[in-house]
Amino acid sequence: MSSKKISTAVIKRLPRYYRYLGELLENEVVRISSKELSQRMGVTASQIRQDLNNFGGFGQQGYGYNVEYLYSEIAKILGLENHYSVIVIGAGNLGQALANYTDFEKRGFVVKGLFDVNPRLVGISVRGIEVRDMDTVKDFVRDNGIDIAVLTVPKTKAPVIANELVESGVKGIWNFAPVDLEISDTHVVVENVHLSESLMTLSYRIKNEDSL
Amino acid sequence: MSSKKISTAVIKRLPRYYRYLGELLENEVVRISSKELSQRMGVTASQIRQDLNNFGGFGQQGYGYNVEYLYSEIAKILGLENHYSVIVIGAGNLGQALANYTDFEKRGFVVKGLFDVNPRLVGISVRGIEVRDMDTVKDFVRDNGIDIAVLTVPKTKAPVIANELVESGVKGIWNFAPVDLEISDTHVVVENVHLSESLMTLSYRIKNEDSL
Repeated sequence: MSSKKISTAVIKRLPRYYRYLGELLENEVVRISSKELSQRMGVTASQIRQDLNNFGGFGQQGYGYNVEYLYSEIAKILGLENHYSVIVIGAGNLGQALANYTDFEKRGFVVKGLFDVNPRLVGISVRGIEVRDMDTVKDFVRDNGIDIAVLTVPKTKAPVIANELVESGVKGIWNFAPVDLEISDTHVVVENVHLSESLMTLSYRIKNEDSL
Repeated sequence: MSSKKISTAVIKRLPRYYRYLGELLENEVVRISSKELSQRMGVTASQIRQDLNNFGGFGQQGYGYNVEYLYSEIAKILGLENHYSVIVIGAGNLGQALANYTDFEKRGFVVKGLFDVNPRLVGISVRGIEVRDMDTVKDFVRDNGIDIAVLTVPKTKAPVIANELVESGVKGIWNFAPVDLEISDTHVVVENVHLSESLMTLSYRIKNEDSL
């Protein structure tokens, strides 16, 4: 089975399945039918079956899904059985917020370093992680086998920094800068969180609710 | 023309058009063809024409788009000619980061208040905005005509807080809590930023690049 054929829409839904199954586990639910799961998630049962069939199914007809098994299988599909070494570039409020988010660490994303150009931030500690000078980031990535860089830098700086990180060997960039990065190495993946665009979508929807 | 018929996919692309046109404006570009715009944005020219035709077009055959005009028209479509009064619930790192983000204010989203339950945070100021006690949030929303609430609270607290805010009259919720909110009032819109899910998508894509 090649997972390269899975559509983006399915991939985007997997973390949501994972989140709901995690909540079921917390509530000690052992087994769930696709119908029950669909009602909770607000998608159709056939959608759930179709999505999961991309990866081999995991359910038995008339028997439903074993919550713990399905949760751990989706974790594997998402690559969450791996541990990722992460650095955060930009130690402002957002960078510090992301470095402080212990939920990420629980999922295997371990923040190994924080970087900034601002001398007033270099040297301070966030959750025991020292803020380092940006000048040292390339060596740090190479020496520590960093997998993922989180970019919380101004849009004018992001493209250059991104390509430096790629040259140093990161596998993925989680980009919060409001710019579409053009990466020279097509094997490096970029996942964008464009906060301004999300806020504008909210604005559009508020405006069009008003006109009902 | 009813804008209710516009598909979600088109709506999600509008902020991106707006961002690119803003950059063209900054670079003092006066006019651009749909072909040039499409090359910059990595979408087809026919896609751009189709998207914009939903709102009446804005271009002339063989003449292209007037950048400033198109920028301001898309701003209107997105509701950015309005000013929105915003509060941020949760004055931790993420809440403070969002309250500090002056780019939002430039677009018309003005943060009027920050709220938290933590007595150590209540009373401090972020960019001149005082952190207030959560107990006072309902009155604040009513008295100040708050349009948008930004939720940066734990997932266990988010559903109750969201419905309190809706009862107090907010029109939209920008939700950063990792939970799908069920809102009693169907006219209130919720826009989610599920950071964990974005990170898991990145993980999936890294894993599947590795297996190439």
